[in-house]
Amino acid sequence: MIKIIILGGGNVAHHLARVFKNSTKVSLIQIFNRSLNSIKDLEKHVEITNNYRKLKNADIYIISVSDSAIEKVSSKMDIGNALVVHTSGSTSLNILKNHKRTGVFYPLQTFSKDRNIDFAEIPICIETSNNEDLKLLELVAESISKSIYKIDSKQRKQLHIAAVFVNNFVNHLYAIGDDICKERNIQTDILHPLIKETAKKIESMNAFNAQTGPAKRGDSSIIKKHISNLNKNQQEIYKLLSNSIVDKYGNKL
Amino acid sequence: MIKIIILGGGNVAHHLARVFKNSTKVSLIQIFNRSLNSIKDLEKHVEITNNYRKLKNADIYIISVSDSAIEKVSSKMDIGNALVVHTSGSTSLNILKNHKRTGVFYPLQTFSKDRNIDFAEIPICIETSNNEDLKLLELVAESISKSIYKIDSKQRKQLHIAAVFVNNFVNHLYAIGDDICKERNIQTDILHPLIKETAKKIESMNAFNAQTGPAKRGDSSIIKKHISNLNKNQQEIYKLLSNSIVDKYGNKL
Repeated sequence: MIKIIILGGGNVAHHLARVFKNSTKVSLIQIFNRSLNSIKDLEKHVEITNNYRKLKNADIYIISVSDSAIEKVSSKMDIGNALVVHTSGSTSLNILKNHKRTGVFYPLQTFSKDRNIDFAEIPICIETSNNEDLKLLELVAESISKSIYKIDSKQRKQLHIAAVFVNNFVNHLYAIGDDICKERNIQTDILHPLIKETAKKIESMNAFNAQTGPAKRGDSSIIKKHISNLNKNQQEIYKLLSNSIVDKYGNKL
Repeated sequence: MIKIIILGGGNVAHHLARVFKNSTKVSLIQIFNRSLNSIKDLEKHVEITNNYRKLKNADIYIISVSDSAIEKVSSKMDIGNALVVHTSGSTSLNILKNHKRTGVFYPLQTFSKDRNIDFAEIPICIETSNNEDLKLLELVAESISKSIYKIDSKQRKQLHIAAVFVNNFVNHLYAIGDDICKERNIQTDILHPLIKETAKKIESMNAFNAQTGPAKRGDSSIIKKHISNLNKNQQEIYKLLSNSIVDKYGNKL
């Protein structure tokens, strides 16, 4: 069994703790967090601590804290020759350089504490400072997921930006869709089947080919009508995204 | 059996034709299109014509053509006292005013010819010029879908704008996500689980509460790093959407 310790008490740390507890190939032996309060719910499953000097011996230490705290946590860990990895999309491997064996274990997904997620479907992006550790980290990733990607630090940063577009920005467009519905007392869940199908569609055709709508068709009369019904912020977004679509498909308005 | 004729040869017309052919409560008796070529594939299931004078007698005529052609098609139909409806999200009921009994039958979904869709899940938005016809149209909608909404012309236009945000614009963000991945030779399907979960998440929490990411957190250092890695068009979209999120959650950068 590969012995693992998680450092962190946020969403990713919690989800990893839950999935590792159910794994038969790795053994989660301890969780560290500065505030014990935010990991108290895990105490019935695994030993918890807020004291760096009480960190046990493990094969892999997974630092799953906010990006700005990674360096500090890493610097305080005295863990000999074990492998240390972080779970951040936008932080390079190099930040762990005070340790000899380092890596990244980045699950590409959006996590909320109260929402269960099937880890088997989550792409795990791994990177290590040396090749042997890549195999070790691969074993850990395979114990919880079906899809493992070897992604270097530059690629991971790029991927994180793509994730901001397809997750953060997409969700914000969902929120604007809700706002627009509410203005006319339309139940917002009427949009859900369309939202689901939009996401499903790109599994069978790429997003470029799946594009539809007035901007794709270059239908300036509908676009003008739509814009006249929006508030200023919505108008700016509508115009910019429509122009971007118009350009991508070589249309003119 | 309610006798139906569809006028049109596009995606919506095709999908409606297929689902009505399998319905036990309505009978699709004819399809009209100016070009016979684009409805030839339906000929084995139903009579087709391109001649307005050969239109049969039916209970409901469904005009499912491009928005700009609805008025012309409607004006050429000599169909007595039957109910005439269109399927457009952005066209008011009034455009059919040369007929006595009019309505709208708007399925809120994105249709591609080659992609099968479970109609039962599609919200059908209905509106009629008189109350009795609302019941008739409701029967037709219920014969193919589980979710029927009474939506007036103003609401439907608003809904269509919301659909542009959550479908057209969202899909465009997916395409940008693909572009960003390709620049660093990352397989684009790595984004699919995240895209699916983003869409699923809003069924259990509203989009406002589901928001995550650097703009939501007001993390200006990550935002700056991201922007420096994008091309000009991507930068503009990144900035505008991030600022919109920042404003929505009362953050400052």
